[in-house]
Amino acid sequence: MITPLDAHGNIDYNATNILIKYLEGINVDYLFPMGSTGVFPYFTLKERKDFLKFVRENSKKPIMAGVGSSSINEVNELMKFSMDIGIEAAVLMPPYYIKLNQEAIYHYYKEILSSNDMDLLIYNIPQFTNKIDPETVKNLKSEFSSVKGVKDSSADIRGFMEMLSLSDDDFAVFQGQDDLLFTSLELGASGGVCGTTNFSDGIVRLYHEYKNNREMALKIEKNDVIPLMKKLGKYQFPNAYYEYFYKKNNINGGYRPPMYRVGIEI
Amino acid sequence: MITPLDAHGNIDYNATNILIKYLEGINVDYLFPMGSTGVFPYFTLKERKDFLKFVRENSKKPIMAGVGSSSINEVNELMKFSMDIGIEAAVLMPPYYIKLNQEAIYHYYKEILSSNDMDLLIYNIPQFTNKIDPETVKNLKSEFSSVKGVKDSSADIRGFMEMLSLSDDDFAVFQGQDDLLFTSLELGASGGVCGTTNFSDGIVRLYHEYKNNREMALKIEKNDVIPLMKKLGKYQFPNAYYEYFYKKNNINGGYRPPMYRVGIEI
Amino acid sequence: MITPLDAHGNIDYNATNILIKYLEGINVDYLFPMGSTGVFPYFTLKERKDFLKFVRENSKKPIMAGVGSSSINEVNELMKFSMDIGIEAAVLMPPYYIKLNQEAIYHYYKEILSSNDMDLLIYNIPQFTNKIDPETVKNLKSEFSSVKGVKDSSADIRGFMEMLSLSDDDFAVFQGQDDLLFTSLELGASGGVCGTTNFSDGIVRLYHEYKNNREMALKIEKNDVIPLMKKLGKYQFPNAYYEYFYKKNNINGGYRPPMYRVGIEI
Amino acid sequence: MITPLDAHGNIDYNATNILIKYLEGINVDYLFPMGSTGVFPYFTLKERKDFLKFVRENSKKPIMAGVGSSSINEVNELMKFSMDIGIEAAVLMPPYYIKLNQEAIYHYYKEILSSNDMDLLIYNIPQFTNKIDPETVKNLKSEFSSVKGVKDSSADIRGFMEMLSLSDDDFAVFQGQDDLLFTSLELGASGGVCGTTNFSDGIVRLYHEYKNNREMALKIEKNDVIPLMKKLGKYQFPNAYYEYFYKKNNINGGYRPPMYRVGIEI
Repeated sequence: MITPLDAHGNIDYNATNILIKYLEGINVDYLFPMGSTGVFPYFTLKERKDFLKFVRENSKKPIMAGVGSSSINEVNELMKFSMDIGIEAAVLMPPYYIKLNQEAIYHYYKEILSSNDMDLLIYNIPQFTNKIDPETVKNLKSEFSSVKGVKDSSADIRGFMEMLSLSDDDFAVFQGQDDLLFTSLELGASGGVCGTTNFSDGIVRLYHEYKNNREMALKIEKNDVIPLMKKLGKYQFPNAYYEYFYKKNNINGGYRPPMYRVGIEI
Repeated sequence: MITPLDAHGNIDYNATNILIKYLEGINVDYLFPMGSTGVFPYFTLKERKDFLKFVRENSKKPIMAGVGSSSINEVNELMKFSMDIGIEAAVLMPPYYIKLNQEAIYHYYKEILSSNDMDLLIYNIPQFTNKIDPETVKNLKSEFSSVKGVKDSSADIRGFMEMLSLSDDDFAVFQGQDDLLFTSLELGASGGVCGTTNFSDGIVRLYHEYKNNREMALKIEKNDVIPLMKKLGKYQFPNAYYEYFYKKNNINGGYRPPMYRVGIEI
Repeated sequence: MITPLDAHGNIDYNATNILIKYLEGINVDYLFPMGSTGVFPYFTLKERKDFLKFVRENSKKPIMAGVGSSSINEVNELMKFSMDIGIEAAVLMPPYYIKLNQEAIYHYYKEILSSNDMDLLIYNIPQFTNKIDPETVKNLKSEFSSVKGVKDSSADIRGFMEMLSLSDDDFAVFQGQDDLLFTSLELGASGGVCGTTNFSDGIVRLYHEYKNNREMALKIEKNDVIPLMKKLGKYQFPNAYYEYFYKKNNINGGYRPPMYRVGIEI
Repeated sequence: MITPLDAHGNIDYNATNILIKYLEGINVDYLFPMGSTGVFPYFTLKERKDFLKFVRENSKKPIMAGVGSSSINEVNELMKFSMDIGIEAAVLMPPYYIKLNQEAIYHYYKEILSSNDMDLLIYNIPQFTNKIDPETVKNLKSEFSSVKGVKDSSADIRGFMEMLSLSDDDFAVFQGQDDLLFTSLELGASGGVCGTTNFSDGIVRLYHEYKNNREMALKIEKNDVIPLMKKLGKYQFPNAYYEYFYKKNNINGGYRPPMYRVGIEI
């Protein structure tokens, strides 16, 4: 989920409601507020809580909430809050800013997992923060039963296959790059956490077609998903996702710096 | 300044006081709390304010406060708070996590500079966050008189020279890498913002010797600063800075994950 | 194909013959001498010609010859030589050493394609030399009918999909990374150019099973190919490929620096 | 030295003579044919020998010859040839194309140094080929007295300082980046191997002024060298160096692909 903004750069809850209804309509399995496409680092802790609360109160879909922060105190606070309001799962990437080795990343997750029982997806997105190695994921998974899977947005299929080798009935591996979903399903991925759902149903159709009609799924990937991803990829991430959503829904949306309006045609 | 921690990973104000007194004793010109060595992203907004306030109340040295956050709301809040309590200047790097182009970085600074009058140092540290180009610094400097300089920790001397070309009476360029201070002074740098000051006076002596005794300054660089930086550089940043400080002062200090204790000898 | 070496680091033609017979036995479609696994840059022009000639004279399999060099004169000489001795196709990566933009790469291929009629595969391997963009491949393909396809060893599936979008009856797209062959076939790849063939038939079985028994192919990938690639990947490339081949065939093989013997168990 | 080319992309010896006379006129200490600016990888072994021979026969200046190749046989041949014709020293970077660890690089140099007595400069240029660590340089220096120094073109001052720590009466450390020469001299560099000498005497004047008039040297760096380097840096390397030389001397010069003409104004 993007985090819709008004002309002043504040969260726009009317627009958020439109987004929630759209996502329910195209039949996603989970809502994922405050992820990277939701530009979570651009908001205060209070804004993040308010947004999670609004999504919870306005949808019956299961929710996985982005709880990322380099500060373990903030992560703990967001996890407890999310659990209290009935959110089903949390999604957490390694800390950002300071470059970290795997030992540091392990200490971070261990501390958080030791003080929270909430189901957690580990989020690997090395473009934006420190990479978590499959080996570290494996160790955390073996020590904490609340670690329920991984969302891998690395776009590195070799690394993704290593994550997939950890899959079992209690451990899911999700692809975070829309244009790699078909390939990932072929290799055994549990599903996708995909940003184009904010304004397009192609990726959901691909996912649902896949089981019965592999050829059709591949066709959707090639004809719908890849061209859309290429188009979005020409702009500073994730500004085009917002503009696309605003334009499609005739919303007078805005941007909070460092975000800015880009000229994508829909 | 590191942010000294106790055995539970909370800020240790007794230790902070020891640190302040040491820095005053070796005669630094400014205190710089909540920078990268101070692991500012590992703290909550409240912890950051409390720490800034403590430093302000316990030293008469001028202070430049790290106010970094990807959230402009948090930056604005930290700047207003800092100004209110009498802190002299703020230090701000570009937003982290999402990879940004220069246009995005410009929008971010512009928004913040438009709503704050506090003197600001721009902080370039591309190892940890998006790089700010000298061209963007130049544009911001020409539009906002509150932009008083840049702290460059890139370790890229060619880029540093480009920053130096912006120097004038109202614009200072500081070197953020201790082992490059001598070279930077030769090229015209205004000074350094140097992490080894937390437990060693070599870099301050180098700076003061430089004007009168260039050879002595070079000797300190080669014999004291570079070997110390190499030793510290063997460990996950900035854990060794903390351990060094704890050991030197016989403090039973601690770590907040992702930080952890490393075995440096002092 | 590796380029088998004797204890003095010279090409070992007896061992080469053993290799040719093995490759024929496991039923590869083409032989590919003097590629990256064949460490072509470690040989003189004369050694390269001699090796190509030996392979040509000792096998009736179609051959694609690595003709890479940053010097267009050397490439032209190798292509003419290869064509004269009846080699079916050439494989050529962009020039290495000096970092090049796409315009430079285009000029290089254009010059070579204008003076040679031999069928050519473009070789994308950005780990080792300048990357060639799908757009540049597309331009070369549209101008020169002798451009018959691309070998992509980038391990970047997103880029590979872009290459695949150029596929047609006269343009083949090959995967150069063994552990990505299954995935690539799913996406429509024409086949693979795979280094583990030097001592293992898994990847060939995978390829042949794929058309009739996709599940079996996936099983081979997971049980045979990926574990083998991981094992090989622990050593300085491509030393372990050589040692594996030597040990398997009880050959007293050697290395030419910068190659050296590694301790892989087979 | 660039390698001047005629309109057909062949070496232009008349132009080479003009270049030699110019370099003698501005009083460089050494000629350095077949380095990176000389695009040595774009030539055949015979062309490289012919060029070295021509330079030797047409100048009494000491010469250091670029003998780089990933093939140790080619390096050995070039070194023996150079020694035979009276060239004073060889310059050699680590092998390119295949990514190598330090052990591989060590094996390569060791093999070459064991079979040649010629004085050698190790050439570090990680932008174009595998990086050689100061530690590896140190080991080679301690084992082979023919290792007389290092040319470092990395533009990494921290690494350069590590190379400088190896300096002694028998081991020189040269800066390969013109705009970093002043800084490097300050730190104790032996001198520079600088590409702008092909058409400009600024860097030579800087070097000669440095000993007596440090301020003048710094002025030349800021007013002449840095602006020239910035201008050249806007184009695909090293095309602008060639065009500049051609234009300045009214030579109808050419390019061998992947080189091409760029529109620099002189």
